[in-house]
Amino acid sequence: MSDRFVPMSSTSSSATRDEEHPAFTFHRGGKLEVSPAVPVRGSSDLALAYTPGVAEVCSAIAERPELVHEYTWKSRTVAVVTDGTAVLGLGDIGPEAALPVMEGKALLFKKFAGVDAVPICLACTDVSEIVETVVRLAPAFGGINLEDIAAPRCFEIERRLRDLLDIPVFHDDQHGTAIVVLAALTNALELTGRKPIDTKVVISGAGAAGVAVANILLASGYEDIVVTDRGGALHVDRSDLNPVKRALAESTNPRGRTGRLVDVLRGADVFIGVSGGQVPEEAVASMADDPILFALANPTPEVPPEVAARYAAVVATGRSDYPNQINNVLAFPGVFHGALSVRARRISEGMKLAAAAALAEIVGSDLAPERVIPSPFDPRVVPAVSSAVADTARREGLTPR
Amino acid sequence: MSDRFVPMSSTSSSATRDEEHPAFTFHRGGKLEVSPAVPVRGSSDLALAYTPGVAEVCSAIAERPELVHEYTWKSRTVAVVTDGTAVLGLGDIGPEAALPVMEGKALLFKKFAGVDAVPICLACTDVSEIVETVVRLAPAFGGINLEDIAAPRCFEIERRLRDLLDIPVFHDDQHGTAIVVLAALTNALELTGRKPIDTKVVISGAGAAGVAVANILLASGYEDIVVTDRGGALHVDRSDLNPVKRALAESTNPRGRTGRLVDVLRGADVFIGVSGGQVPEEAVASMADDPILFALANPTPEVPPEVAARYAAVVATGRSDYPNQINNVLAFPGVFHGALSVRARRISEGMKLAAAAALAEIVGSDLAPERVIPSPFDPRVVPAVSSAVADTARREGLTPR
Repeated sequence: MSDRFVPMSSTSSSATRDEEHPAFTFHRGGKLEVSPAVPVRGSSDLALAYTPGVAEVCSAIAERPELVHEYTWKSRTVAVVTDGTAVLGLGDIGPEAALPVMEGKALLFKKFAGVDAVPICLACTDVSEIVETVVRLAPAFGGINLEDIAAPRCFEIERRLRDLLDIPVFHDDQHGTAIVVLAALTNALELTGRKPIDTKVVISGAGAAGVAVANILLASGYEDIVVTDRGGALHVDRSDLNPVKRALAESTNPRGRTGRLVDVLRGADVFIGVSGGQVPEEAVASMADDPILFALANPTPEVPPEVAARYAAVVATGRSDYPNQINNVLAFPGVFHGALSVRARRISEGMKLAAAAALAEIVGSDLAPERVIPSPFDPRVVPAVSSAVADTARREGLTPR
Repeated sequence: MSDRFVPMSSTSSSATRDEEHPAFTFHRGGKLEVSPAVPVRGSSDLALAYTPGVAEVCSAIAERPELVHEYTWKSRTVAVVTDGTAVLGLGDIGPEAALPVMEGKALLFKKFAGVDAVPICLACTDVSEIVETVVRLAPAFGGINLEDIAAPRCFEIERRLRDLLDIPVFHDDQHGTAIVVLAALTNALELTGRKPIDTKVVISGAGAAGVAVANILLASGYEDIVVTDRGGALHVDRSDLNPVKRALAESTNPRGRTGRLVDVLRGADVFIGVSGGQVPEEAVASMADDPILFALANPTPEVPPEVAARYAAVVATGRSDYPNQINNVLAFPGVFHGALSVRARRISEGMKLAAAAALAEIVGSDLAPERVIPSPFDPRVVPAVSSAVADTARREGLTPR
């Protein structure tokens, strides 16, 4: 039989209607395969790969559990786990329809960092069910990348998994975005001569990305942060907040700002949009001089880049067709590569900050308004992020011996 | 970064003691990787594989769920699921120590049938927990191969998963073994001029393999079957039987035989050993003329092949260094290839019987006492088994439209 198995298609004729977009041709049959990493030429190789030889290896691991890292794929393999409730901009489309994204994510893991990743699409959305399922399937994996799980459930799922597992758990929609935003903002502040402690930041969106961005900025010395959701600025007197937003209202907004996004934008230095809600031009015009605009919604940024360019000193978007693309692929491959390479027990705040610093530094003397963050294809990115993460894990005592 | 990621080894110096067996060198770093099945050359490919292109595909699947078979790896991917409780001859060694076997199984799936398989090693052993976990992770997989789960839990797990899922569920330790045994026995009966209905069969072992072998023989017209466990022959008056053994006692042993294995072997035509318990030479000598001996325990057959050869017309073992190796790899790659190729909802009794018949037929005019079953490397095996399984699934109405 051939090495590549393509099941007979029973629906190809009825599927043609969809195939106008080139993505359909590209995706036909799926984007991943599981390949041998060892030669299997004949019965003598099989006698090593399977019975009887494999029993020697199994017995050794049973006796000394840490050998699982030496003799299996565990230490280089990540489960990409979703429940399909917050997929791209599409929302709750379910686990099957989310699978192409998880395959794509696995592709990026392999292509950018050589990390093997397996899509796991769960047919459950309850927090406890997701947590117990991931705990049960963890033994064969070296890390867990949570993906496209709706807020606020994603926060508790990640927190509980971090407590229960001794392998890295990383919700990319939160922390991947936060790392890249922090890196870009670090460089944008340098360009505009600002310091974190004096910089007024407004974050539009209090979902996975907004919460994580606010938290990483707080951990980096930013103090004046206002986060807004559809109800306006998060502040401690609001009675409509879920526990995550309430905690955020308490840790941010030191001046007790109230009102809508357009109200709190007045005089702000930095706008970070992770909501998709459009910002009127007058609100942009009301910001401080030389503002920094990160309009990250895809495909439609919160501020059209052309409008943003008329006011801002630095503009970043989530799109590849404009300068300064805030792309998670700058973070997650290197973060997992670094964590797996030293068998870190978890991905700490320090490791995320180190990843952001390493990313920011790569730009170096190329720093310019249209270049506050490296290209995802810059070959220095993954090694730099990986080293920073691994070094920090070692320093923090998160690695074995 | 390189395409193959090898994490830094922190235990290699302390692991050397184990490395005398060549299996350790072979297994270092694991035996599988997840590879791109599509080209990813630059940003235009990424824009198809990931955002924004992937959203088109996700939306289409959300609207027409059956398209998941066209545009993802689901239809060619099997989860190889274990709880590590009955691994090879090693017993309950846990999910991590079982991982090398699951990787090996996945390797065989790919090598023999081009089917992609993912090791899933569960950190739970409770029947309900395993069932609910597999149901939850099923959306990204086209089939479930249960592996090395201890009896009698394996029976209920398989039964409940078959009821709950609309993809094939197959416990290879049961049905893979049963299919190959039936195929070999079919040819052995032809060689010795016997008919199933007149053939007295004794099966030593009432675990996963013994139960499945008994059931497939019953479905094939064998009537005089006695199954033994450590307590001797299973018969309806025994009060120490679990529900599975009780059911077997009711469906087999029509003559109500009692006593130990050596007692029921007297006058038997066929011995099938799937227990590892040794059979004394006198008991072999007490069987009918020209008996058929399948001594399948690994690495030590229940009857030494040299002893068996003195009495038997046909001898088969589980070992590759003797003729007539009963090897599951003759069945599971083709069975899943066939079932996946037509998107069969399940693997029926008819599909298993068809697989066994196809396997038996391949031997054809080469039929001889030392050749009642094809070699696992015979290139006709997987296509023949796959076609037989797929045709039967279609005929039984187990495929879409």
